Amino acid sequence: MTESVRAPLGRGEHARRRVLRAALDVLADDGMPGFTVESVARRAGASKATVYRHWPTASALLVDAMDAEFRPVPEVDTGDLRADLVALLTAFAASFTDSPFPKLMAAFTDAAERDPALGEMHAELTRRRREPLLRVLDAARARGELVDDLDAELVVDLLAAPFFYRRLVAHRPMPPELPGAVVDHVLAGVRTQG
Amino acid sequence: MTESVRAPLGRGEHARRRVLRAALDVLADDGMPGFTVESVARRAGASKATVYRHWPTASALLVDAMDAEFRPVPEVDTGDLRADLVALLTAFAASFTDSPFPKLMAAFTDAAERDPALGEMHAELTRRRREPLLRVLDAARARGELVDDLDAELVVDLLAAPFFYRRLVAHRPMPPELPGAVVDHVLAGVRTQG
Repeated sequence: MTESVRAPLGRGEHARRRVLRAALDVLADDGMPGFTVESVARRAGASKATVYRHWPTASALLVDAMDAEFRPVPEVDTGDLRADLVALLTAFAASFTDSPFPKLMAAFTDAAERDPALGEMHAELTRRRREPLLRVLDAARARGELVDDLDAELVVDLLAAPFFYRRLVAHRPMPPELPGAVVDHVLAGVRTQG
Repeated sequence: MTESVRAPLGRGEHARRRVLRAALDVLADDGMPGFTVESVARRAGASKATVYRHWPTASALLVDAMDAEFRPVPEVDTGDLRADLVALLTAFAASFTDSPFPKLMAAFTDAAERDPALGEMHAELTRRRREPLLRVLDAARARGELVDDLDAELVVDLLAAPFFYRRLVAHRPMPPELPGAVVDHVLAGVRTQG
């Protein structure tokens, strides 16, 4: 991304949003090695003083920027367990291919290893992203479609983890049929018979 | 880790190993933001010239250091599919709890997003770590214990991914029974009946 000439930033919400957007751009392009208040201010066309007016540290800015980016995936509830899970995982897979999300995830994962406050934030962001999957599983269990002793948290791990792993660790492709294949494999072990 | 007084480094294999060890220490403690030839040389008690004699860039040094660390998990082949997979995943889980491995993984994952050479190296290291799981699955398929149309690569994703995800993304605990639970869930969908 190239820097553009921008109007000077004021004190308000508009300035805050521009800095948050610049923070994500810097993080996606340069990772944590390049993530400083100075580099974010430069990208936003703001002074360091403007950034410090809103955030005391680069870590605090990073947490707010990631909170704005890591929106939970949309709710689905068609009542069809397989279709709902495939829809959620398809949105999940898209976030790994269409957006700066994977680069942000990688940078944040690394930073969280060295900063306990970021680690807690990372855990909380992940928890929010897991909720729609948990709700779909709970609804299916209430309908009697899943075994009574279902370990829903483990099932969510099995459903969600392959997308992180493929993109960030194995560097393997994520074909469009992957969400369906993951759902079918995972459901095979936890559906009630009949 | 504190720096200790060390004998001056020579040119040979001993010096090379000490620098590789120092590179992993720096990476685990400081992540990519602190990973420079200078910081590794300082940690190893070596001159920058000594490091540059073996590696042209910090990236080249990082690749060699990670190659030394990411040893494939041990081979197992008892002929019992569940026991073999649980043994492999237990070793895998241990590498996420006992060693600097998760911090190194996080730093390397971030760096690989910005450096294609590191990305290829990361993919290759991951491929090596997957091989023992693939061999155990192939052997079980040859014994007729798994469905004929098994997608072994996907099954390896489902088996391996939850450990990365729990430790590095969800920041959730990995209890000793996790490998067995993951194996049981994944095998439920791919075992032949009877």
